[in-house]
Amino acid sequence: MATSLARMLKGQVRCYSAPLDMAIPASKQRYIPTTGTYPQGFRVSGTHVGVKASNTRFPDLALIASDTPCSAAAVFTTNKFQAAPVQVSKKTLQSRKGNGIRAVVINSGCANAVTGKGGLEDAVQMGRKVDECSGVENDSSLVMSTGVIGQRLPISKILDRIPTAHSTLASTHEAWLTTARAICTTDTFPKLISRTFTLPSSPDRTYSLAGMTKGAGMIHPNMATLLGVLCTDAAVEPAALQSILKHAVSRSFNSISIDGDTSTNDTVAVLANGAAGGETVRAPAASASADYTALQDIVTDFAQELSQLVVRDGEGATKFVTVRVRNSPDYESGRQIASTIARSPLVKTALYGKDANWGRILCAVGYTQGVAEGTIVPERTSVSFRPVDGSEVLKLLVNGEPEAVDEKRASAILQNEDLEIEVDLGGGEQGAAGCGGEDAVYWFCDFSHEYVTINGDYRT
Amino acid sequence: MATSLARMLKGQVRCYSAPLDMAIPASKQRYIPTTGTYPQGFRVSGTHVGVKASNTRFPDLALIASDTPCSAAAVFTTNKFQAAPVQVSKKTLQSRKGNGIRAVVINSGCANAVTGKGGLEDAVQMGRKVDECSGVENDSSLVMSTGVIGQRLPISKILDRIPTAHSTLASTHEAWLTTARAICTTDTFPKLISRTFTLPSSPDRTYSLAGMTKGAGMIHPNMATLLGVLCTDAAVEPAALQSILKHAVSRSFNSISIDGDTSTNDTVAVLANGAAGGETVRAPAASASADYTALQDIVTDFAQELSQLVVRDGEGATKFVTVRVRNSPDYESGRQIASTIARSPLVKTALYGKDANWGRILCAVGYTQGVAEGTIVPERTSVSFRPVDGSEVLKLLVNGEPEAVDEKRASAILQNEDLEIEVDLGGGEQGAAGCGGEDAVYWFCDFSHEYVTINGDYRT
Repeated sequence: MATSLARMLKGQVRCYSAPLDMAIPASKQRYIPTTGTYPQGFRVSGTHVGVKASNTRFPDLALIASDTPCSAAAVFTTNKFQAAPVQVSKKTLQSRKGNGIRAVVINSGCANAVTGKGGLEDAVQMGRKVDECSGVENDSSLVMSTGVIGQRLPISKILDRIPTAHSTLASTHEAWLTTARAICTTDTFPKLISRTFTLPSSPDRTYSLAGMTKGAGMIHPNMATLLGVLCTDAAVEPAALQSILKHAVSRSFNSISIDGDTSTNDTVAVLANGAAGGETVRAPAASASADYTALQDIVTDFAQELSQLVVRDGEGATKFVTVRVRNSPDYESGRQIASTIARSPLVKTALYGKDANWGRILCAVGYTQGVAEGTIVPERTSVSFRPVDGSEVLKLLVNGEPEAVDEKRASAILQNEDLEIEVDLGGGEQGAAGCGGEDAVYWFCDFSHEYVTINGDYRT
Repeated sequence: MATSLARMLKGQVRCYSAPLDMAIPASKQRYIPTTGTYPQGFRVSGTHVGVKASNTRFPDLALIASDTPCSAAAVFTTNKFQAAPVQVSKKTLQSRKGNGIRAVVINSGCANAVTGKGGLEDAVQMGRKVDECSGVENDSSLVMSTGVIGQRLPISKILDRIPTAHSTLASTHEAWLTTARAICTTDTFPKLISRTFTLPSSPDRTYSLAGMTKGAGMIHPNMATLLGVLCTDAAVEPAALQSILKHAVSRSFNSISIDGDTSTNDTVAVLANGAAGGETVRAPAASASADYTALQDIVTDFAQELSQLVVRDGEGATKFVTVRVRNSPDYESGRQIASTIARSPLVKTALYGKDANWGRILCAVGYTQGVAEGTIVPERTSVSFRPVDGSEVLKLLVNGEPEAVDEKRASAILQNEDLEIEVDLGGGEQGAAGCGGEDAVYWFCDFSHEYVTINGDYRT
């Protein structure tokens, strides 16, 4: 009895004040790449600063630098309280019109948020120190921070270590992995992916795309910040890069949910240095651009894969759930419905409990705010579970009528870590006229006891 | 060791498949009234039906009846998937224009939601059976249901017991308490309050107002439904009653949050039979009506007290939190911000963990959607904890600048069950011009391990 109780309790408690030995859980090892294909002309490093005094040896300063000037674009948090690095990077991108960016410098351990004018100066100084080391003009670097809110950065320590960060820049797989680690807070594993691609205008030329992200881990008194950096050696003009990133982020980083909270620091940036040569990708003016469309699809797909790693590492997550809303009259309404399901505590706890509770899913569909009239018509709505093993779909609700559910099969499907929920809106009013409709996808995780433990800063 | 582990686990596990012996936890006893002042001309009963087969003895059918026709008004769920009783009651009120309502009949144990045409017929039959027993014309009764979704009502059993429900109608305190119990699902205590009041037009006349509600408890595979019924012996014309109820519910039942999910069955109704005599309260046309304004304030205050009992009984709740947003340019923006704080899983888990995490509160303010430009200005925003013991306010953030927080005092304040969070928006842009602003209040509870246990249907 005592042993089983102890085991149960142990299963619920995660070492959440950062994995001190940086050991990666066995179940997450499969997400760590052992090699990669990195874009030409980029070098990176992860350096120990000790932003948090308790961190005496792990890298917490990431530097991502290009040998040549880059086009750059970024998507920032919509939170009204924007951290200093967000304000500073935004201004840098605007004043440079997305041209001539050379580096991104990121610290973990302190968010530099709600830190007033002093915090703004700190963020500016971080960037300028990098510019100085690179021997380039001021305001060539973007700055990001993640960690504790309401505390000033230990700025001298950071400035002191930036020359080291610069002098250790390298292009090896190990360097990329160390850099991806340096931006983590309580993430249980570094999140790094890379791939090669071609563009229609020069099918024989190989381009590379690499990206890192960090997500949903937090240390008292902090909040989850999502940061992401993508680098490519394709040549892309800034306006095209910005619109491609916006499209991709909407369908990836902004289509995932751990707990629905949006932090003060969230930033996803992309740098394109053109080191692989070829034509410059431009935004389509009058005529469509094949390269633009191709690159948009590639970046979107890449960003989805990268952002899904954040969900895989959601705090306390035991499930990875895809919700696909089909046949919505418009994409935004579909996304809004998917987002509402992904944020519902009742849906999330039912999934944790492996409970095929379609009533809660339906309920969340029904209370979605801000969708056009006629989008949700009960008599046209269907809900199914799509098993990840490719076996037959389990229908729960068909055109508003509940199915007789095989509870055993439902339970078996819910034993898996992965699950896909499909909500078919039947096309809304347009669909009835045979117009088909848009699909929207969201990825989310469940709410577990561990989530509460981690975020309640539960002191045992 | 084993004992303390067992104790810890026990503390986390609640008997959530309904308290079988209906025993009320000691900590909730203080919310049960031992007497009451009930409105004249109303009689009520709570009867055992056994809607859920497992319920072999507890009342699950509530009947609230007036000896004379009432004005009636109701506020229904905005969920697109409206349960059959919601659709039927809405239609009844519309066709009768809020006049001539004689009763409300409510069953617990089955929500009669997503049950198609058959479910609609069941809801109509429930009401008609009550009309028949009362010897009044058809469609004089409102119908409500709460419980399992997607299952048909055991309608014959219910119809068979309605005559008993009618024949046992009584006006005693015990009858009111039994009726309040009959509408509960997994609520840990019945929620009933009553009071007397006067109106400006006849200051010597005593009116009574009584109300019951049920809330945030759920049984697999169900969702929390909020039901409420208010009865008064004042005379109020239907249009006035509807607008008073709408105002009151916006500031009470629609300003509370357990988990932010809105069910398919939520309904709050009010009946006014005029049995206490006096002038009829009418909606103000050209000139203001003193009685209308007075009654609106009385009903709003009453509805707030009643709805707060739902928060006190929130699933797994260990905290009762009031969030007051001050100096908003408009009421709706303030309410939206309060609602966002009340729904933030990060805020709710921090409160459970007794963690004075103002960063998360600020973060929720910052990502509030749908507020007018200029409502949230970081440099004007202040956040404080207001202790319930009346001791000095603990300032956390003043005009966007973090305070040096006395962590010991913060921790002491958070030991209490009750807490008030104050967010001062500094009046938005208008406030800067000295316009003051609106205040909005929300009541909510924390997210605990027990919430996850209850809603995960955690099978140990």
